Amino acid sequence: MFSVGVSDHVMIAHSFADPTFGPAQKLHGATYGVEVEIRAPALNPHHVVMDIGALRTLLREVLNGLDYSCLDDHPAFPGRTSTTERVAEFVANELVKACASLPADARPVGKASMRVMLRESPVAFAAFEREM
Amino acid sequence: MFSVGVSDHVMIAHSFADPTFGPAQKLHGATYGVEVEIRAPALNPHHVVMDIGALRTLLREVLNGLDYSCLDDHPAFPGRTSTTERVAEFVANELVKACASLPADARPVGKASMRVMLRESPVAFAAFEREM
Amino acid sequence: MFSVGVSDHVMIAHSFADPTFGPAQKLHGATYGVEVEIRAPALNPHHVVMDIGALRTLLREVLNGLDYSCLDDHPAFPGRTSTTERVAEFVANELVKACASLPADARPVGKASMRVMLRESPVAFAAFEREM
Amino acid sequence: MFSVGVSDHVMIAHSFADPTFGPAQKLHGATYGVEVEIRAPALNPHHVVMDIGALRTLLREVLNGLDYSCLDDHPAFPGRTSTTERVAEFVANELVKACASLPADARPVGKASMRVMLRESPVAFAAFEREM
Amino acid sequence: MFSVGVSDHVMIAHSFADPTFGPAQKLHGATYGVEVEIRAPALNPHHVVMDIGALRTLLREVLNGLDYSCLDDHPAFPGRTSTTERVAEFVANELVKACASLPADARPVGKASMRVMLRESPVAFAAFEREM
Amino acid sequence: MFSVGVSDHVMIAHSFADPTFGPAQKLHGATYGVEVEIRAPALNPHHVVMDIGALRTLLREVLNGLDYSCLDDHPAFPGRTSTTERVAEFVANELVKACASLPADARPVGKASMRVMLRESPVAFAAFEREM
Repeated sequence: MFSVGVSDHVMIAHSFADPTFGPAQKLHGATYGVEVEIRAPALNPHHVVMDIGALRTLLREVLNGLDYSCLDDHPAFPGRTSTTERVAEFVANELVKACASLPADARPVGKASMRVMLRESPVAFAAFEREM
Repeated sequence: MFSVGVSDHVMIAHSFADPTFGPAQKLHGATYGVEVEIRAPALNPHHVVMDIGALRTLLREVLNGLDYSCLDDHPAFPGRTSTTERVAEFVANELVKACASLPADARPVGKASMRVMLRESPVAFAAFEREM
Repeated sequence: MFSVGVSDHVMIAHSFADPTFGPAQKLHGATYGVEVEIRAPALNPHHVVMDIGALRTLLREVLNGLDYSCLDDHPAFPGRTSTTERVAEFVANELVKACASLPADARPVGKASMRVMLRESPVAFAAFEREM
Repeated sequence: MFSVGVSDHVMIAHSFADPTFGPAQKLHGATYGVEVEIRAPALNPHHVVMDIGALRTLLREVLNGLDYSCLDDHPAFPGRTSTTERVAEFVANELVKACASLPADARPVGKASMRVMLRESPVAFAAFEREM
Repeated sequence: MFSVGVSDHVMIAHSFADPTFGPAQKLHGATYGVEVEIRAPALNPHHVVMDIGALRTLLREVLNGLDYSCLDDHPAFPGRTSTTERVAEFVANELVKACASLPADARPVGKASMRVMLRESPVAFAAFEREM
Repeated sequence: MFSVGVSDHVMIAHSFADPTFGPAQKLHGATYGVEVEIRAPALNPHHVVMDIGALRTLLREVLNGLDYSCLDDHPAFPGRTSTTERVAEFVANELVKACASLPADARPVGKASMRVMLRESPVAFAAFEREM
């Protein structure tokens, strides 16, 4: 099994409606360090899972939809539910779609999967993993 | 599959009885960077695997039993066997028990698993993974 | 010259009034990794610059005034001017005051200085340094 | 499931024949941060997956065959195909062979696997995982 | 005293003529993690040392002259002398020039200095510091 | 001003006699990540502050006197006073002596200084800086 991974980051504001989150119900923010890993059982004709430069570009395009924004206003997180888990799921789903639009020889081969990890602080992260 | 992860650390002394460990048979010590990851197939009603603050608190309580101590005297590691693998296993087992004591709506849902990784130096770690 | 350093972090929302900051004029947020270093020409009677535990506690108290908040509403940053440099300056000034309230034998000795660095992302930081 | 992991690094030059890699067709280089993880279902008689010191020594021996060299001349990467994925695969295959030469009581027990991750920059990595 | 810092990286090949460097006389390469810090006694009218985005852009332009190249062919390092110290000095000198071309209100104020640090591996770096 | 820096680590046990340190009066331990920086106003004839390989070797020799030991028994820290500051001071003093034994053309030139930083955990460090 092969993997390729890239990193980027976004800076967002948000708050949570659910009282379980205590002080995080107040408007605050986060720098999410975003780490994407794609796993595939074999390499494509270019001897890579997929091109690192292409993956970084697609990830940046997905993240542009979140960067420098307040997630309380984002339709993907209705009712102020933008937990780190939900943001990771959103990024993964959008990035899987973006990868599907690549030419066949630029995509991962075989039964590939993607994992998106968001580091919200030096001591906490959340992640979402799915098939591509 | 979703994940949540938190980090903390402990500072312990220990030595090993087994001659295979060479200089580590002498009394020495380690700062273990402790990284916990919980994986679950779905989110709980709060849109998280489990609350990061709750997980950090439980981890700290488990680590309090090890922090600033000499593991040679700890009953979990008889015969001076506190290898990083065994300490990771101990922390995971204790933390799984602690999570089980949470109210149902604060626990991970479905068939969850936990991985505890201990970084003993910039160049070495060990980990233990089990079902919750 | 001796130094002691500790780290912590805060999660804040903010926006900037100054059009020079482009997209950062919109409401967004940041996790600031906060690194404090105190330098002193000699050690105190306890063979330390100052106690790490005491410094971490004081830093946490200062950061509690910022954590999980929107800096646009904070009186220290009038007119939405909470640049990373200004936040570092604020934390340093508050922390110098907090250190001054410690008993004499718990404070740094001699002509000490403090540097507060805020990492706003994996690729950017700002810092402020002053005498204590 | 238990894991043990160690890290090291190599500094290599290379270029790519495949035009898909754009500027990386030119002779350039990389510091590969090399992270190896071995997973095994149980510990060996020494209460470890395998000895960290032994694993670091074997990894260094494998990396000596790459360090301070130009991979364009290495027989494992014919036609200038030393993508990070291919280098990870090569290191893993060589290191599995090296581990097999250890005495039985120094090897991982049961059905073990190895993952070799190469970090080529702060924002990109590739990895290869296989059974041992 | 205030500081602002940004990071980037380059991937280069090179070799050394000087026999003192042993195996590094052979063609090899490095990923240089590049960390720039600018220190200034006061903030400019925008409440920053200088804009992080502008600094990252200028640094990228300077690094484009090195990225994906073999420094043995670069006129700044005659006789294969591209030690990490010399590369740091080159980047700093070019970046100081680039900053000088900014409009007055976008530049650091007062007697500013710049430090460029290049991390060549997890265990080694070199740096160069100068007035701006 | 030029700098060169290298890293290594040691694993030690110790305890403190001074009641100010609370739980750290008990026997515990630490992995110290050791970071050395040497600053010099100019480069030596080899275009470096000093050779990274030579510096790493000297540092390792100094650290061998501490690694896998209990500092309570070390004559440099009488009365159980091995605070991180004191250990940094000890390493710096020993390493300055070791550098002085190098041939003239392998040493830093001009008025050089050395800083030794010891990271005792992800959230705390101490350092000592002196002329060479």
